[in-house]
Amino acid sequence: MIAIDLIGIGTGNPDHLTAAAVRAMNDADLILLPRKGDAKSDLIDLRRNLCAAVLTAKPNVVEFDLPARDGRDDYLGAVSDWHDAIATAWRDAIEKHLPKGGRLALLVWGDPSLYDSSLRIADQLRVGGMALILRVIPGITSIQALTAAHAIPLNALADPVLITTGRQLRVHGWPDGVGTLVVMLDSGCAFDAIDPVGVHIWWGAYLGMAQEALVAGSLAEAAPRIATLRADLRARHGWIMDIYLMRKETPDGR
Amino acid sequence: MIAIDLIGIGTGNPDHLTAAAVRAMNDADLILLPRKGDAKSDLIDLRRNLCAAVLTAKPNVVEFDLPARDGRDDYLGAVSDWHDAIATAWRDAIEKHLPKGGRLALLVWGDPSLYDSSLRIADQLRVGGMALILRVIPGITSIQALTAAHAIPLNALADPVLITTGRQLRVHGWPDGVGTLVVMLDSGCAFDAIDPVGVHIWWGAYLGMAQEALVAGSLAEAAPRIATLRADLRARHGWIMDIYLMRKETPDGR
Ligand SMILES: C[S@@+](CC[C@H](N)C(=O)[O-])C[C@H]1O[C@@H](n2cnc3c(N)ncnc32)[C@H](O)[C@@H]1O
Ligand SMILES: C[S@@+](CC[C@H](N)C(=O)[O-])C[C@H]1O[C@@H](n2cnc3c(N)ncnc32)[C@H](O)[C@@H]1O
Repeated sequence: MIAIDLIGIGTGNPDHLTAAAVRAMNDADLILLPRKGDAKSDLIDLRRNLCAAVLTAKPNVVEFDLPARDGRDDYLGAVSDWHDAIATAWRDAIEKHLPKGGRLALLVWGDPSLYDSSLRIADQLRVGGMALILRVIPGITSIQALTAAHAIPLNALADPVLITTGRQLRVHGWPDGVGTLVVMLDSGCAFDAIDPVGVHIWWGAYLGMAQEALVAGSLAEAAPRIATLRADLRARHGWIMDIYLMRKETPDGR
Repeated sequence: MIAIDLIGIGTGNPDHLTAAAVRAMNDADLILLPRKGDAKSDLIDLRRNLCAAVLTAKPNVVEFDLPARDGRDDYLGAVSDWHDAIATAWRDAIEKHLPKGGRLALLVWGDPSLYDSSLRIADQLRVGGMALILRVIPGITSIQALTAAHAIPLNALADPVLITTGRQLRVHGWPDGVGTLVVMLDSGCAFDAIDPVGVHIWWGAYLGMAQEALVAGSLAEAAPRIATLRADLRARHGWIMDIYLMRKETPDGR
């Protein structure tokens, strides 16, 4: 029997690891670490360092090359093929390193529920006939890292919040009836697509990491600053991950 | 100078505490624990137990009676008065226990950004003229506790998610263009207000606690089960906190 633990590790700050995550890492027989290619080598280093810092028991820590996602136009099709390829990589690792069964742990960036494929990939293994016990250990998301870094509430008082993607924001604009948007997975400044009047933005990149950068201000004033800084940081580090919260001004100013 | 740390402690599972939270608790000079009256005495016990479990340094742990919120019709007015009353209680405790300044810590349920008043109350102290350094330590939210307990993703692939309240759902129904809703602060089964066709629900109460209860199913089938179970649990324990995620079925079943 195979048990798979999807362990949320937070988004870069090793201090955001929970006690449950540390315990689950130590309970594993095998920890698989994905290698994503050169640009994001910071992220594999971060996972290696986490393992070095918290493992007292000695699970087998094995690295594997994460298959790359195909850039073709059919986004959902490309994602689905990519999930299949990763499921195959997991299955191969399980057959090789846990031939008699055991507990596999995956260290998932942030929280496993939020814009992450691991749950869907584990489902693929199930669909493929593998009997498995799946457990999710929650982790601090980039949303919480963002609001904590700026010391702001996620929601205006008693109001809803929409979590969305840069792509959605470009296609659909600011949806009716929502005062707060959190935008993730933005390949570049989708906030440019909306009317900035009355909108405030809180932006963060590399949250929790040494490179952390924060900008806040009215969207009209902050947007060009963010665009310039983002391009600079991306050039300097070779990669970037950023997230932002936008709120429409309400009479009470929040 | 006063430093205030708002420390997210997760939603009932002490193992959800992060290393940063443990450190901030130990770095405090004063920890204020709110007493909320009899019904929710589980929650003050939980905070007391957390302190007992993780404090190695010995900050002064002081309990205070949380002022009650006025049930009057003017909701925003009542909330604003309530924040003022809590701000006064914090100020009194600071004057009494930290007359020469120091570091105050508040243990905030879940994450301080999410439907919580602490950030607004700290702002009140600032507006009232207190010079303070505010720091937020993120915590695992009830949203992550819910998705982890059910081992489900928060979002459908690349899709948005709306976080909202029971009150909003009753007033506005299911908003256009969103496939996933998370409903919090529901005083009782607001899902009854929407058309259940094609909707799936994942519900959880007392997440992370000994009383934890979970229900999942199609909304049509699960709604009456949840309503009955919720009433029973509430009668048995004297209080309840619950949260749910609803998703409209899409062609791929998620
Ligand atoms: C594939 S999603 C994974 C999200 C992750 N599961 C979480 O809980 O935050 C990646 C997106 O998360 C956001 N993100 C993750 N880590 C971040 C960080 N350290 N700083 C800023 N944004 C981050 C960015 O919007 C990025 O495009
Ligand atoms: C005032 S809000 C505080 C939310 C908290 N800051 C968080 O991060 O989850 C209280 C609401 O959170 C949800 N909640 C908090 N703890 C919960 C738990 N242990 N189980 C189920 N729902 C919970 C319920 O919807 C409840 O009405």
